[in-house]
Amino acid sequence: MKAEFINSFITVTTNVIETMTSVSVVAGKPQLKTTRSTSGIVTGVIGLTSDHLAATIVLSFEESTILGIVTAMFGEPITSITPEVCDAVGELTNMICGGAKGQLTRGETKFNMATPTVISGKNLEISQLGKGPTITIPFSIPAGPFTLEVCSAEIKQ
Amino acid sequence: MKAEFINSFITVTTNVIETMTSVSVVAGKPQLKTTRSTSGIVTGVIGLTSDHLAATIVLSFEESTILGIVTAMFGEPITSITPEVCDAVGELTNMICGGAKGQLTRGETKFNMATPTVISGKNLEISQLGKGPTITIPFSIPAGPFTLEVCSAEIKQ
Repeated sequence: MKAEFINSFITVTTNVIETMTSVSVVAGKPQLKTTRSTSGIVTGVIGLTSDHLAATIVLSFEESTILGIVTAMFGEPITSITPEVCDAVGELTNMICGGAKGQLTRGETKFNMATPTVISGKNLEISQLGKGPTITIPFSIPAGPFTLEVCSAEIKQ
Repeated sequence: MKAEFINSFITVTTNVIETMTSVSVVAGKPQLKTTRSTSGIVTGVIGLTSDHLAATIVLSFEESTILGIVTAMFGEPITSITPEVCDAVGELTNMICGGAKGQLTRGETKFNMATPTVISGKNLEISQLGKGPTITIPFSIPAGPFTLEVCSAEIKQ
């Protein structure tokens, strides 16, 4: 996986969350994921493809983090995981993937994105099972941490 | 969403599960999904895209159903949801999406698929949040029911 690919997601994720919430986002060091679990209480999943690459993006929020984000987005205190919170996670997932798609599409390499899916619940396990590596990028805002995972596999034509 | 698109998934899902398990699959009537929940204990998610369509496929198994399927696939009794069971759901999701991609790709309409993600756990909610409709197709085998959901949205270029 090229550094440029991961760097696009770091830049776009930071920009999207900062724009939507007006709080500062701190990105940590990307790491190769070696465990199967993803621990957030609300998680967005979306596919991103080109003729040469198959990828899936997983955006997972701790409860305090997403409640802080939607409180900022909605302009009123949000204290529990409602369908509207899940919708907001779907929209953030869509915006981040769309932003990265825009940065990555150039020349003959055109990316298309799928539709977002959102999972909410405790004690669940989310595993990315593509044939390539999964990179985890830790982020934090004052309300708490969140992670972005990118699983990608090159396609042999 | 064209009937041809849904029919491809019915045919391919039936063929893949019957081939992998040697048991008969009964497909029910596709329905427009109107609730947010997806109730299976193990669920595979994968994106499918073309230049004209964004879609996500969600394949969700009840516990008895997937244990019956992996028992048939592995040739030994499987009695709980292990990482190997989740891997099998990822592989089935991949095979079904790949089969539908093969049927749907023709002429200038080329589909690409993303990488599979598998979610396991109880009391979770999986919502497809694409801008198009979600169609649910109920299936059953002797061990129990499973569902395939297809959310798709046309892309305006």
